[in-house]
Amino acid sequence: MSILVVGSVALDAVETPFASRENIVGGAASYFSTAASLYDQVNLVAIVGSDFPQEYLDFWRNRRVSLEGLQIREGKTFRWVGRYHLDMNARDTLDTQLGVYADFHPRIPSSYQDSQLLFLANIQPQLQMELLEQVTQSRLKVLDTMELWLMTERAALTEVIKRVDMLLMSEEEVRQYTNQASIVTGVRQLFELGLRYVVVKQGSYGALLFGADGTYFSAPSYPLEEVIDPTGAGDAFAGGLLGYLSTVQVGPDGSYAVDDLKRAVVHGNIIGSFACADFSIERLRTLTMDEIAARYRELVVYSHFDPEWQPKSHEIKA
Amino acid sequence: MSILVVGSVALDAVETPFASRENIVGGAASYFSTAASLYDQVNLVAIVGSDFPQEYLDFWRNRRVSLEGLQIREGKTFRWVGRYHLDMNARDTLDTQLGVYADFHPRIPSSYQDSQLLFLANIQPQLQMELLEQVTQSRLKVLDTMELWLMTERAALTEVIKRVDMLLMSEEEVRQYTNQASIVTGVRQLFELGLRYVVVKQGSYGALLFGADGTYFSAPSYPLEEVIDPTGAGDAFAGGLLGYLSTVQVGPDGSYAVDDLKRAVVHGNIIGSFACADFSIERLRTLTMDEIAARYRELVVYSHFDPEWQPKSHEIKA
Repeated sequence: MSILVVGSVALDAVETPFASRENIVGGAASYFSTAASLYDQVNLVAIVGSDFPQEYLDFWRNRRVSLEGLQIREGKTFRWVGRYHLDMNARDTLDTQLGVYADFHPRIPSSYQDSQLLFLANIQPQLQMELLEQVTQSRLKVLDTMELWLMTERAALTEVIKRVDMLLMSEEEVRQYTNQASIVTGVRQLFELGLRYVVVKQGSYGALLFGADGTYFSAPSYPLEEVIDPTGAGDAFAGGLLGYLSTVQVGPDGSYAVDDLKRAVVHGNIIGSFACADFSIERLRTLTMDEIAARYRELVVYSHFDPEWQPKSHEIKA
Repeated sequence: MSILVVGSVALDAVETPFASRENIVGGAASYFSTAASLYDQVNLVAIVGSDFPQEYLDFWRNRRVSLEGLQIREGKTFRWVGRYHLDMNARDTLDTQLGVYADFHPRIPSSYQDSQLLFLANIQPQLQMELLEQVTQSRLKVLDTMELWLMTERAALTEVIKRVDMLLMSEEEVRQYTNQASIVTGVRQLFELGLRYVVVKQGSYGALLFGADGTYFSAPSYPLEEVIDPTGAGDAFAGGLLGYLSTVQVGPDGSYAVDDLKRAVVHGNIIGSFACADFSIERLRTLTMDEIAARYRELVVYSHFDPEWQPKSHEIKA
């Protein structure tokens, strides 16, 4: 199996209340590819400038990330400068420089056409649609987005939502897009667009999985004492989710078993938690499946409770 | 077994964005007693005025809530007037009228002295301490508080914390009291005051249980499509938690089994979810143990995942 991802590969400058870094690798597709390639082959579609460090290209190639769809152009890589607030849950974008990304149009190499899973990271809906139109076969199309497009490109975004199977959104984005205070009601509205799955990201509270068939799963977050840099945690979450799904069998109708979907969201949370442990993709670079399995076992202990409890007769009070 | 509770019994006026009610039964001890008495005997210590409706006193008496410690004085019952914001997660107190509560001093009837569990609802720390000084034996002392006392009565509150076994706090209260951004770090600081357990309430995200012995449990919330009135949800949570704990055996050293503590927090979340389904204590009045058991079974499905997952060899990438 393999996973096709289209999204940004960037150079970031990040400032948290406790430290700062400049000229570090960022972008949704960078986090996603590094995470998902722990599980399976990743086929990257993106663009970088001639200033992008060769070291990271070599790292991805060695880590089963195909770069055949990565366009390398004379000029500057997309740059993002951000600063986190004291509580790390909010941040301000201080600057963005598009560089070679300004003229980006995704192109899928023919060798990518057998990708069974597709991840549209949070780039402009128009570019997401351009990519969708080149896809001839795909078992699962997954869409991520960001608040900016909800506000400025709502119609185009809605067209993309109608053409994918699974949507990832933060709680705030669900509320904003559906104009519903209740997440449950908002997600029901999203299903009217034809989605099969909606995954609601809740940051440090974990994630919720909704299925159009009524499936509901609340995945616990891994408790972190310290967050070094939350940038890319959502993209790493998606990488763990799709990476895990890429390794499982689907039913005859192309649907996933609920147990597989649950495991996939748990993997997403675990990978997202590791992403916060360092700046850029550094922690994800050294991450091993044994470390992932250790956090998985911890989460079982942290979140499971007696499934067999029944009220005793003396507790029943009509 | 029985549970002693001291706290407010009030008459509320509540306004939400969708509806409003006046002159309804409120107060932390009202919610707690109604919830906990689903599980076991409750011994109430509180004060009301002569205007408090007899119907509710009769209801509690019929529901194994002893009112021997309820002082009924000529005058007006404590009144609270609140208005919720559009998202129901924030509210403003518009008015409070202390009435007979202004002269309240808790007194424990001798018949209450065998209460094994003690719940100090969110009244003034000085009154909580007055009650503690009358308690001769208690297996588990549990303390709730509110933001007001963190700001105005920090020293007195700290003295009470030092004398109890379990503390219930919202996430925001943990951050404010400990001045730590990380809940994990903040809770560790709380344990230095001698607590055995800290339960962190996360509203619609559920609750976290921390033990001084390293126990950690993240209890899922029950997903609600509609919240009619969140008033008292935290008190009902405490009622479910202590109510359940009152029905279990403790070890020779007086400690609870982790599985019992986990079940107790899940019960707390379930009862809290029911409290939101109507104004005042109305939903809790009609609640049955079968309805609680049904939500318990749902939460198992909603939050449990394969506990046995191990990476397959082909997934391992060094």
